[in-house]
Amino acid sequence: MEKINDLAGYYPLKIYQNDDWFKFSLESVLLPNFVTINLRCKNILDLCTGNIPIPLILSTKTKAKIVGVEYQKDVYNLAVKTVKINHLENQISLINDDLKKLKNYYSGDNFDVITVNPPYFFNTEKSKKNFDEHKIIARHEIMTNLEDIIKISCFLLKNGGYFAMVHRTERFFEVIKTLENNHLTPKRIQFIYPKENMASNLFMIEAVKDGHVGVKFESPLYIHNVDGTYRDEIKKIYKL
Amino acid sequence: MEKINDLAGYYPLKIYQNDDWFKFSLESVLLPNFVTINLRCKNILDLCTGNIPIPLILSTKTKAKIVGVEYQKDVYNLAVKTVKINHLENQISLINDDLKKLKNYYSGDNFDVITVNPPYFFNTEKSKKNFDEHKIIARHEIMTNLEDIIKISCFLLKNGGYFAMVHRTERFFEVIKTLENNHLTPKRIQFIYPKENMASNLFMIEAVKDGHVGVKFESPLYIHNVDGTYRDEIKKIYKL
Repeated sequence: MEKINDLAGYYPLKIYQNDDWFKFSLESVLLPNFVTINLRCKNILDLCTGNIPIPLILSTKTKAKIVGVEYQKDVYNLAVKTVKINHLENQISLINDDLKKLKNYYSGDNFDVITVNPPYFFNTEKSKKNFDEHKIIARHEIMTNLEDIIKISCFLLKNGGYFAMVHRTERFFEVIKTLENNHLTPKRIQFIYPKENMASNLFMIEAVKDGHVGVKFESPLYIHNVDGTYRDEIKKIYKL
Repeated sequence: MEKINDLAGYYPLKIYQNDDWFKFSLESVLLPNFVTINLRCKNILDLCTGNIPIPLILSTKTKAKIVGVEYQKDVYNLAVKTVKINHLENQISLINDDLKKLKNYYSGDNFDVITVNPPYFFNTEKSKKNFDEHKIIARHEIMTNLEDIIKISCFLLKNGGYFAMVHRTERFFEVIKTLENNHLTPKRIQFIYPKENMASNLFMIEAVKDGHVGVKFESPLYIHNVDGTYRDEIKKIYKL
């Protein structure tokens, strides 16, 4: 069912969501708080933008123009309504297309920053079971994949531009290799842990197009306390 | 000056050290508590063994035979005395030679586990300033280097054997690549942080010879509290 929700504590931002499909995730709040947005940043691209949580949060941090790209028409339509209800038509624009086709929209070296919370899972036969199609496409590499996302990002980013992604830790080395094969140099990495004394399940990475080699492993991020409540640092990022 | 010290809280173990040269480090206590030692483990090799803190701690965890290799004659002589004072002649044996020459001592596929706390720093002109020669050799890649250590380890390890190393986080990707180029598959990684909200300076990694791909990023390890005292988890590992 379609609903209008608060975007965590980012008042007065509102977000249209359809809870039969999928809702914005924790990672969509973490990533725009991780990526480097400096004062020279003029153009941001958010791939696999979904319900546009990342563009919305970025709009609170920068006056840069933000473009969101979403392949699924239904999801795109919801996002258009979200832009309107927040009166962000002058800052956020949306494209409903396959991200590989962005070459038809832009020449290379166009964006200062590209963010993406991509589909995490490989496309297997099992992928197609149990879930609504919108969710399957959002979570599995059916319409796009890691290689496509990174290739188009390298093409669209300016030299020295920032690429920020969140992904599953089990795919960490694959992400690193794919970045390095596409002129994107890892510069900052933050591992995310469900709670203390558990292995990492997610990580965020920022890479710079044709950047110098040398990476910083940031202080890790724990999501929950032992009792299952959010950690203070997560509440702060959520503005709760 | 030569001294006999306690090995942290590993009573009654004693360790000969010369405090003009170098003393056993925190990492030498962490690594033997990180590496996988299972019941089938019969033969362990510790490279760059120094004052033999790693073999000593391992001797409290396993009945496997442990060989320590140390290039520096003076340091080796101290280690021989440490073996004796702890009555560990039946478990720990020592070799005073260049680790590249271990091919003259062993055929391949010989060890179940190899541990190493290697020299961390590149050999530059600056390396040679300020310090005692024993310390310079222990800290800088003068007599050996990452590539040599990993190559000989791959040769000496049994298939399915464990290779465990601690190193500087700034050399993380170089370590990963060198392991992968030598049939050692990273399986467990733990980043070490000086304290909360600081970047990682060290990490421990365990790789398996010809292991299946798939790595676990363990819960990170913080060394100090904000007030500079050791964290409880470090005190536990130190047995303090």
